[in-house]
Formats: sequence, C-alpha cells, structure tokens
Amino acid sequence: MSTRAGIVVTGTEVLTGRVTDLNGPWLADRLLELGVELAHITICGDRPADIASALKFHADEGVDLILTSGGLGPTADDMTVAVVAEFCGRELVLDADLEARIAAILKRMMRRFPDADFDAVMAANRKQAMIPLGAEVLNPVGTAPGVVVEGTPTVVVLPGPPRELQPMWSTALDTEGVRRAIAGRTEYRQETVRMYGLPESGLAETLRLAEKKIDGFDRLEITTCLRRGELEIVTRYEPADAETYREVVALLNEQHGTDVYSTDGSTVDDQVAGLLAGRTIATAESCTAGLVAARLTDRPGSSAYVMGGAVVYSNEAKSELLGVDPALIAAHGAVSEPVAEAMAAGALRRFGVDTAVAITGIAGPGGGSAEKPVGTVCFTVARADGATLTRTVLLPGERADIRERSTTVAMHLLRKLLQTP
Amino acid sequence: MSTRAGIVVTGTEVLTGRVTDLNGPWLADRLLELGVELAHITICGDRPADIASALKFHADEGVDLILTSGGLGPTADDMTVAVVAEFCGRELVLDADLEARIAAILKRMMRRFPDADFDAVMAANRKQAMIPLGAEVLNPVGTAPGVVVEGTPTVVVLPGPPRELQPMWSTALDTEGVRRAIAGRTEYRQETVRMYGLPESGLAETLRLAEKKIDGFDRLEITTCLRRGELEIVTRYEPADAETYREVVALLNEQHGTDVYSTDGSTVDDQVAGLLAGRTIATAESCTAGLVAARLTDRPGSSAYVMGGAVVYSNEAKSELLGVDPALIAAHGAVSEPVAEAMAAGALRRFGVDTAVAITGIAGPGGGSAEKPVGTVCFTVARADGATLTRTVLLPGERADIRERSTTVAMHLLRKLLQTP
Repeated sequence: MSTRAGIVVTGTEVLTGRVTDLNGPWLADRLLELGVELAHITICGDRPADIASALKFHADEGVDLILTSGGLGPTADDMTVAVVAEFCGRELVLDADLEARIAAILKRMMRRFPDADFDAVMAANRKQAMIPLGAEVLNPVGTAPGVVVEGTPTVVVLPGPPRELQPMWSTALDTEGVRRAIAGRTEYRQETVRMYGLPESGLAETLRLAEKKIDGFDRLEITTCLRRGELEIVTRYEPADAETYREVVALLNEQHGTDVYSTDGSTVDDQVAGLLAGRTIATAESCTAGLVAARLTDRPGSSAYVMGGAVVYSNEAKSELLGVDPALIAAHGAVSEPVAEAMAAGALRRFGVDTAVAITGIAGPGGGSAEKPVGTVCFTVARADGATLTRTVLLPGERADIRERSTTVAMHLLRKLLQTP
Repeated sequence: MSTRAGIVVTGTEVLTGRVTDLNGPWLADRLLELGVELAHITICGDRPADIASALKFHADEGVDLILTSGGLGPTADDMTVAVVAEFCGRELVLDADLEARIAAILKRMMRRFPDADFDAVMAANRKQAMIPLGAEVLNPVGTAPGVVVEGTPTVVVLPGPPRELQPMWSTALDTEGVRRAIAGRTEYRQETVRMYGLPESGLAETLRLAEKKIDGFDRLEITTCLRRGELEIVTRYEPADAETYREVVALLNEQHGTDVYSTDGSTVDDQVAGLLAGRTIATAESCTAGLVAARLTDRPGSSAYVMGGAVVYSNEAKSELLGVDPALIAAHGAVSEPVAEAMAAGALRRFGVDTAVAITGIAGPGGGSAEKPVGTVCFTVARADGATLTRTVLLPGERADIRERSTTVAMHLLRKLLQTP
C-alpha cells in the first residue's frame, strides 16, 4: 500500500507567470523524501470555481492528502481557506485567539511603516483568522495562518510566500491530520548522478544497455534531465533494489568515466567550495559580468575564500583594473585566449589570491562575427603556482543561456584545476 | 462566447522541482495576450496514466485547446506523443519525411561530439518521428517535432526546452487546428502598475476604497503580487472598461503618488536603462558580489553604458581596488554608510564613469550583531557631478532574499538619482 498526494498551487500571478512558483516543486521534493507518491501539481488563478475543481480533480485521482499553497493574504482575491472549507463540508468560523495573535504580529511589522493606519490594516487582516470548523491551525510565520482539515482526503492549506510555507510545512507534519494521512507511505531512496560533457542521447544509449544487461532495472524509477548545462540522473528505488542501483552506477562509470563527476549528490558548486577550503579566489569577468562571483558567494561562509572580483565589461576596465595590455586586446580581440589568460593573471596579482577564473565572451545578440560567432566564450583558470587551464567553447542559446552556461563551464574548469596536484 | 485552454506540463524533473518549469507560465502569458481564458496548468511526471488523466481533467473542464510541454525526447521516459495519440483516438505512425529531417539535424549537431556513434543516436531519435495519424507537424527547433491534433479539444504538443517551445508555439498559431480552436476568443487588455515602498495591506485598503467609489470596478480582473521586493498590480479588462481602469490608476496615484513608479508596463530595469543612455556606470559590490552588475548587463546593448564593476568581498579588496581607507573601515565597520560612500567614490574614480552604485551589507546567516543585524545593507549611488544618495535599509528574509532584494533597492536608488536634475 502506498500514500498518494496532490498539490494545488493557487494565485493568478503564478498562473500567468508573473511570479515563478517555487512551492509546488519544493513540496514535491518533501513528499518524495517522505515516500509519498505525487501524481500531479495543478496551478490555477484566484477563482473559487477553479480552486474547487482542482481540489475535486485530486480527490478523484484518489489521493490521501492535498496540499494547497497561496491565497491566504488580506486582499479580497485571496480565498483558498473559504473554498477548502466548502470542499471539506466545514463551516468557516472566526478564531478569536488566532485573531489576537495576528494582531500582535501586525503591530510588530507596522513599525517599519510608521505612516500606515493600524486599524485599517487589522480590518484587512481579520479575514485571515477565519478557519474551517474543527481544523488544526498552523501558526503564521508571516501574518497568514495555515490549516489542516482532516478527511478523505486530508487537506493542508499553506501560504504562498516560500519563506512562510517552508517552516509551516514542518509544523503541518507534526499534526495528527497529516500524520494519519501519510501513515501508509513506502520507504524510498533517491540518489543522483551528475555528468558533464555528454549529450543526452549518449546517456539514452547507455540506459538502454542497462535495461538489457541489468536484472531488476525496470524497478528503478530513473529520470534524466539537462540542467544548467549538465546531465542529471535521478533514481528512486525501494531499499531492496539498492544492489541494482549500484550496478547502474557502475555501468555509467564504465561507459562515461570522465564525464561522471558526482555520484554522492554533491553539485559542482559543493565540490568547488570544498576544493577552495584553505585557498583564496578572485574572478575576472567580462560577458558574465558578476554571475560567477555571485554564484561562488551564493553559499554562506564563502567570504572565507572569495576575496572579490573584477567585472571588466569595457576594454579600458580590462586594462585599468587587471593590467591587460591594450596591445594584446588590439592584436587578438577582447574575446581571445591570450586576453582570458591576461585577465586571470591580473586577478591573481591584483587580489593577491592563489586561484583565479577569467571569462571573456560574446553573449549576443550583437557582437558576433563569422570567426567568433555569438556564444564564443574563452575561459582561463589559473593558480598562483603556475597551473593553468584555458579553453574556448561555443555555447548554444540566447544571451541569458550563454551567460548562465558560462558560469557552469567556469565551475567545471575550476574543479579540474583544483583537483590537479 | 469565450475560448478556454488548459496547459499540461509533463516531466518528472519538473514535477519534482529539479528543473523549474518556465513553459506553463510563458504559455499562460501568450494565451492571455490572445484573449484565451486559462483555467489550469497541471504538472505531472513521465507516467502515461498521469498524463492521460491530466488531459482528461482539462477536457472535462470544457476547454477548447490543450497545450502540452515536454516528453518529446529520445529517451524511453518521453512518451507524450503516444499518450496524446491515444487520448485523441489516433493511430501512431512513422512520418518518413520527418525522420529524414531529424537525421539531417542530428548530423549537424553531432559535429560537436566527434566520438559519438551516429547510427546509435539516430536509432534513439527515430521515435521522435512517430506522430498521430493526420496530425499537423510542427518542425523541430531542436530535434523534437511538435504536433497539432485537431479535435474537441484540439491538442498542441510542444517540446520541453523553452528555447524550442517558444518559436514552435508561433508556428502552432499558424496551423489550421489552432486557428479554428481559438476562433471564439474575447479581446482583452492587460496593463500593469508597479509600486515600490508600500506594504501589500496598504494597497488592499486602496482597492477596497476603489470598489466602493468606482463604478464597474468589479468588471476589472485585478491581481496584486509582491515580486522582487516590489508590488505589481496587473489588471485585465475588456476594451469597453478602459475608462474604469483609468479611474483606478488615478486613485492609486492619488493615494500613493510617490510609490507608484510605473503605469506603462516598464520595469525599474527598463527605466534605469533609459536613464543611463548617454552615461556610463560602474558598480562596487560587497554582499551582492556581482548581482547588480549582472542585472544591469542582463539586457542586450548594456555594454554601451556599463563599464564594469568591482566585487570587493574582503576589506583588502575594498582598499586595493576602490581606494577605501582602511582606517575608515576600522572606524565604522565594512557595513556602514561612510564605507558605502567611499566605495561609490572609488568606483567613479577607478572606472572613470559618471555614475556609480555601491552596496555593502550583511547577507547572513552569520556576521550579524545587535547593532547591525543580518539584513542590514548600506547603499550609495553617486554621480560624478556630486549628486549622491545614501541609504541604510533592513531587509527581511534569508541570504538569497537579502542579496536579491538588495539589487532591487539599488535599482530604485539609481532611478531616483538619475531622475534628479
């Protein structure tokens, strides 16, 4: 027996793409970790009839649990709780205690807006204290409380902002309603292999080989996808199939050894961060204009090794900040291996670091030529001890793709350089 | 009479959040522009039964058109076309002409992978030439063709990668099947007001006032949302309600004049780019570490005014690259208004530009104190003629939120500075 769930994301701003939904995927991942099957995520606007038909769809699919996100705000277009109450056949009632808690939160928040009228704001937020009769309340992280309505299926109502939804999901997991709904779940493992440098069709070929050679292969649930210029192979399996999974990983290593860079779940960002421990790094970026520095400093604690970087969009900035000889730019062009090398050398010197990464390329849409088309990007990674790698690649896609993929290429070159003794 | 559509996004990697779905929202926006109502986007994994039940859900909702994205790749887990064929009651047949076209595309692509086996790849891709009998083929942009199967509802099958899906949607619009399916659409207008500096509940209050004061207000479909630290109000209406919409905008201006910065659809990025025409700018970033430079250079043509930037994560980098006096840092701390001012002055001097933006803050999770908690960020924007604005703000959220919101604050300060005569 297994437990199944569905996710209902609400919000016209999400349906129409003005806000990217992060909740559906995040909740999906949490459900998978728990061993709860997820069949569908549905997204609809702030219309009661559409929210109701989405709830009915999931219930008709026979799920044990429905999670909703969004529609808990103070504005009149937020009405998820009312629709859920009706769907579950519960009356909507004012929870006076909850109303007092929301008022206390609002008083604190309003300090940032000294000109706002507290009573008006409180009136706008009173509707957030209306809950389905008998529902379990999830205390607000922002101002919107969630609710758990036990039934067939059990419905968990969560707020839209991810930073509110995520902690409230943890609270929901501790409620009686959710615990009973997911009691029948199966235990799954999920593992990830990451590859860099192989086309997707090459991997498809290997997986067909695995299907022929490896017993029990069809019990593994394998998903492959291209992500940030890499190939990711995610496998879900029941613990009894662990040996079969190990055989698949062994086959991938055998067929594509140098392309497989991670089998333990680590990303290239994790690996580079590990390799940079005890070192110092600076960036020198032209076409990516800060994206590599931003990616390296994504993670807490990166200030231990990232000293800084130079964004050198103009030729003058390349010379002034990094000491690139203008004659070198004149001779080879700003997008060239000699200039990438000079940029990396300049970053090592300028920031007094032991590792540098330099990128110069043509992100487009303009600036390409027959010889150096849009997507041409030159990279140099260099260590103060003289170890250096320089590469020129031709990246597909548009401006944003080329800039984004360039950061991935840079991370992999850094990984290679730092793994070299 | 109006035309309604549903969107079926497929792909286990999307359902589980390893890849962010961009297609649902993008297609939703295209449908809205066309005046086609959209009720639901559903997302499911690569399981035939789930894809089939999603198709049935949308059909039961009475839509005229279903768009699917994803599941057209060469791997065995890609099976959207087969499921759609069965759903539409059509046989799946090999289109020999299409197979030849795919082969030609693959030959070109394979040049980048000289070691791959062409016949093996071609076999993997043969299934992409299988189409529902009588369907209209949408020529591949990558290697995956789309199809349009006319019926009740008409189904349009599109590939997963956005850069393939987007041009193929244009092609689909020209097919007989899609043209007939959307013949009954209503004309809508959609306009956006953008605000900065007001809490969402303040806006809710004004919209309640509008509801009382403005005749026909309930015919406008208004969505409000927080996005990148701003408030966005999107309104859809039929052309006959244009005057009502104008009254709402007038009321917003009356109530929140200084907070309303855009009523013509322009973003702060658009406005800053316009204001930078004929000028030059450089960035000086600590906690955002390149994100502002990357945001300014998002748009094509930005090399005309962005000269470069300094990412100065360490104190040494602040002094070495931007000439910030170490004594100033020692006296006030790296996160302080005097240091932000010195960074901006250093960027003006160093890059020889007429505009600079400097940011220094505590993105967390570590590094905060009682006096300067995590989220404290100091900004200076400065012009070479001496005009300067300096602000310290306390931003909510986690590391990534604080970094991202800081870029929005920086853009608005730049807008203000550049609008000052």
